[in-house]
Amino acid sequence: MKLASLKSGRDGKLVVVSKDLTRYTEAGRVSPTLQAALDNWDKVAPGLEELAQGLESGSVPAERFHERECTSPVPRAYQWADGSAYINHVELVRKARGAEVPESFYEDPLMYQGGSDSFLGPRDDIAMPTDEGWGIDMEGEVAVITGDVPMGVTSEEAGDYIRLIMLVNDVSLRGLIPGELAKGFGFFQSKPSSAFSPVAVTPEELGDAWDNAAVHLPLLVRYNGEPFGQANAGVDLTFNFSQLIAHAAKSRPLCAGTIIGSGTVSNKRDGGPGKAIVDGGDGYSCIAEIRMIETIQDGAPKTPFMKFGDTVEIKMKDKLGKSIFGSIDQKVVKYDRMV
Amino acid sequence: MKLASLKSGRDGKLVVVSKDLTRYTEAGRVSPTLQAALDNWDKVAPGLEELAQGLESGSVPAERFHERECTSPVPRAYQWADGSAYINHVELVRKARGAEVPESFYEDPLMYQGGSDSFLGPRDDIAMPTDEGWGIDMEGEVAVITGDVPMGVTSEEAGDYIRLIMLVNDVSLRGLIPGELAKGFGFFQSKPSSAFSPVAVTPEELGDAWDNAAVHLPLLVRYNGEPFGQANAGVDLTFNFSQLIAHAAKSRPLCAGTIIGSGTVSNKRDGGPGKAIVDGGDGYSCIAEIRMIETIQDGAPKTPFMKFGDTVEIKMKDKLGKSIFGSIDQKVVKYDRMV
Repeated sequence: MKLASLKSGRDGKLVVVSKDLTRYTEAGRVSPTLQAALDNWDKVAPGLEELAQGLESGSVPAERFHERECTSPVPRAYQWADGSAYINHVELVRKARGAEVPESFYEDPLMYQGGSDSFLGPRDDIAMPTDEGWGIDMEGEVAVITGDVPMGVTSEEAGDYIRLIMLVNDVSLRGLIPGELAKGFGFFQSKPSSAFSPVAVTPEELGDAWDNAAVHLPLLVRYNGEPFGQANAGVDLTFNFSQLIAHAAKSRPLCAGTIIGSGTVSNKRDGGPGKAIVDGGDGYSCIAEIRMIETIQDGAPKTPFMKFGDTVEIKMKDKLGKSIFGSIDQKVVKYDRMV
Repeated sequence: MKLASLKSGRDGKLVVVSKDLTRYTEAGRVSPTLQAALDNWDKVAPGLEELAQGLESGSVPAERFHERECTSPVPRAYQWADGSAYINHVELVRKARGAEVPESFYEDPLMYQGGSDSFLGPRDDIAMPTDEGWGIDMEGEVAVITGDVPMGVTSEEAGDYIRLIMLVNDVSLRGLIPGELAKGFGFFQSKPSSAFSPVAVTPEELGDAWDNAAVHLPLLVRYNGEPFGQANAGVDLTFNFSQLIAHAAKSRPLCAGTIIGSGTVSNKRDGGPGKAIVDGGDGYSCIAEIRMIETIQDGAPKTPFMKFGDTVEIKMKDKLGKSIFGSIDQKVVKYDRMV
């Protein structure tokens, strides 16, 4: 089944969306919000499934679904923990500065605690006070929403707690990262509000494309309207979502509604470094990556980070070419506190 | 006024507590939970104030208040961002390993994004699978809960968004910290669930003790029943809560209910390093600090971290010796997933 939250109040209004993303039916009588549904999943999910079936068969009232009316599926969450499962991305960062990737990175996932209190909607502008120096960048990723996960869960069990899957734009401020990481406490100001796809789907909905706790489809990223990335989220991942969840739950339980991200999707192809789509490669899911490749090849980056007016679109299509999650489609604009 | 959340469901049941912490009245007809009250503060606060006055004058129904029946004031929050405002603590960490504190640390606050989805109640056990190697420690801190804070707020304005003040035990796993910080993404597994004081109070409630966005009273820490720390939260702080909030809101807004922590309260007194209470000093708000002082003085730490059965109590008294927030009182126990 496919779920979305229409813009309404702080936590959105839960709706069930048709497989083809053209229609929705209100789910308020089953659960007012997606967080409330996740809090009571075992009781609530059958009622939502019933609505989803009714929507396909035409037996429940339906309205036209517009992705632009959506907030992120969970507009504010109790947890957003983002991994870095595609080590190719990390290898490139290190290589660009002439450093080795520690052996442990292949066994112990990188993960940071992200801010989860103020997500952007999938079509909301990325508003920043400046586009000079902050290094505004997108990061195209896959994410899962979990149920209640007990502390100490094993990676064998952890996959059972995955309730929903969606896409993310983990907006990053590259210019603020080096200073923050040098302080030793991780990202904070360098990770502003993230945006998620209009629609979140159950693992079953993905069919064969969901295997071994990963999505085996290309993540399609367009930058200013041009194809920029098509890396396959099922390729070159060092850790799947089961392993990421187990990592997150090592020393504390995870509350229902916890969002776990994959990190920037990045494929190696032919040993890498990855080529642009125009050059026959799979491109990139963030600008930092092409800049690292430029640095490795030419000694310096030449692609600039995002400026006011630049746009990014992130989506994923099924094998028939139909959009699964709807698209994240955002523009960078100047932030004005008075607006 | 003083507010608390009695254990009930995932988000607790909001009650107004008497100034002397002996009685409470239910606040359900005004707001079911503290998060809901924070979401609608301007509308809801007058009704809560009325209940608080009625409780003092005896004109509303009252029940006996038991701190042990409380969950943390916000049992799960949308954000928990913990600063490190008492640079003495950071200076000791660095000094113990023979490193300097960077100049920037005196102007740019250290802050990490904490996990906020699964807080412990103030009397809940700290359950860990092992007490060997993980380095279980307490961190006694002060924290504030904010309203909705706009992105880019200045530190001059930020204090206006402080709604409530409480105490924290920011439980830390010292044995896991070096490995995590070496990975560069900050704390994750090394910061398990934190616990907050039974009661959160408005700034007005603190009278003179709330000044310049800081609490000017000693934070009383007892370890296994013995006085361990009495550092004054208004002394030696490099950053006040206004500055910490402005830091957190530089590149994104903060949602109502955001919790901002002060970091471990630590006093220098006479140029430091701080002495134990039995030696006439103000002691410590965490075990790591006494271990750093032991390392500086004797070349190696001798006070062990917490073992199963060890207890920590954290509270704060007003000038008349009355407990303001109630007490955090926790025991370290062995975690058993089957329980």
